[in-house]
Amino acid sequence: MSELLPCPCVILNEPQLAENIGAVARVMANFGLSDLRLVRPRDGWPQERAWASASGADWPLNDAKVFERLEDAVAGLNLLYATTARPRETRLPILTPREAAAELNAAAHQGLNTGLLFGGERAGLETQDIALAQAIVTIPIDPKFRSLNLAQAVALTAYEWRMTMADQPREAFRANEDPPADQAELIGFYEHLEKELDASGFFYPPEKRPSMVRNLRVIFARSRLTLQEVRTLRGVITALTKGRGRVLARLAAERAAKEQGSQ
Amino acid sequence: MSELLPCPCVILNEPQLAENIGAVARVMANFGLSDLRLVRPRDGWPQERAWASASGADWPLNDAKVFERLEDAVAGLNLLYATTARPRETRLPILTPREAAAELNAAAHQGLNTGLLFGGERAGLETQDIALAQAIVTIPIDPKFRSLNLAQAVALTAYEWRMTMADQPREAFRANEDPPADQAELIGFYEHLEKELDASGFFYPPEKRPSMVRNLRVIFARSRLTLQEVRTLRGVITALTKGRGRVLARLAAERAAKEQGSQ
Repeated sequence: MSELLPCPCVILNEPQLAENIGAVARVMANFGLSDLRLVRPRDGWPQERAWASASGADWPLNDAKVFERLEDAVAGLNLLYATTARPRETRLPILTPREAAAELNAAAHQGLNTGLLFGGERAGLETQDIALAQAIVTIPIDPKFRSLNLAQAVALTAYEWRMTMADQPREAFRANEDPPADQAELIGFYEHLEKELDASGFFYPPEKRPSMVRNLRVIFARSRLTLQEVRTLRGVITALTKGRGRVLARLAAERAAKEQGSQ
Repeated sequence: MSELLPCPCVILNEPQLAENIGAVARVMANFGLSDLRLVRPRDGWPQERAWASASGADWPLNDAKVFERLEDAVAGLNLLYATTARPRETRLPILTPREAAAELNAAAHQGLNTGLLFGGERAGLETQDIALAQAIVTIPIDPKFRSLNLAQAVALTAYEWRMTMADQPREAFRANEDPPADQAELIGFYEHLEKELDASGFFYPPEKRPSMVRNLRVIFARSRLTLQEVRTLRGVITALTKGRGRVLARLAAERAAKEQGSQ
């Protein structure tokens, strides 16, 4: 259902490099956006290099709309956010991409048309362009190195938009995982291990046995073992101890043979 | 003060294009990261094209460390997160970049060394590489278009890291816990266990050895072992196998006695 929400459009104002327009299309597709609008792309439109750098995310490019004036590109939008690294002296609210995404999500749920505006690679957005927006989005970048690639800026805001959509259905991630083993299976494994460690003299001194047992159990409890993993670990215990068993059997056989010989 | 926190390092495993390595350096600089580690870069290192595409973010490239083995690149880390679009069938926790960043921030406040691991452009990470990590980071990408650029993946996780610095520091919620063992200690334990299991014939049939090793490692990776726990588990291995050693010694002594007797 949230998939049916109207998504924000992405408006690039005077973008310069076709490669960057392609990279923008790619990240839009990564995060489920498709409505791309170009205002006065420097080298004209279409540009083959954009498709080449979109890695197959062709649809935002195929459907891209080109405008002469920013005002026309944003005409149908109810809410426009301008992304800029350097908020100029406009008296607009300044939001993080996360805050902006939350507001865009709320607006989309009201059926509003929304857009994210980005400036060209070199000059960014002019104050007059920013003044068309309802708020400024500023990415929390290190002031020591502010040169953020255009497609990266789009990616971060598009990612935050998508995060607002993804808030609920996370359990789908783990649906096909095996369930954790139940406690009886776990305890069976613990006792198997502890029995073998008792036989080997591991728990020494004896009064420390309870805390040593506890510490070992916690290691495996934290790991949230599946039943299959419990079986694997029991196989490990058997493998590590069976050499001993084999040798014991050989020893017993040799002794029996010796005794028979000495009769 | 939070600027003095140890930042996560970025490990690129078998990166292909030098341009992408440069783009990664650029986004690292954007979000305040600087420790870049390269494992078997396809075209060798250094590569001029990396510097050309870093747009002036030279310092992560100048200081980049190159490794032959992933194990060596991650040796000193206490916490390693593997970013992959396709979580394979490892039983590791799957986190969003945001959740991972929160955990990295908490770990940094405990003075731990942390790292973010990324696979190469084409193949991504192999399951055996992922098995070295304590958790998987998956970017919530549109399943209809999963081809995320490497530098974009780094940008999103680095951005989330930086967002945690903008919030106030979460109190170190595990303050009195021992720190996790580092990867070198972990790998030493894995190899100890695997050597003993090799000796016991556990890995059968031989062609299944790699996946069996992986599954075992993941069990312990999930557990986030402390150094003390690693030592305990190595003691467990020794205890389980030494019975065998003791019995062998006894057998050898008996045989020697028998041979002496028959002289």
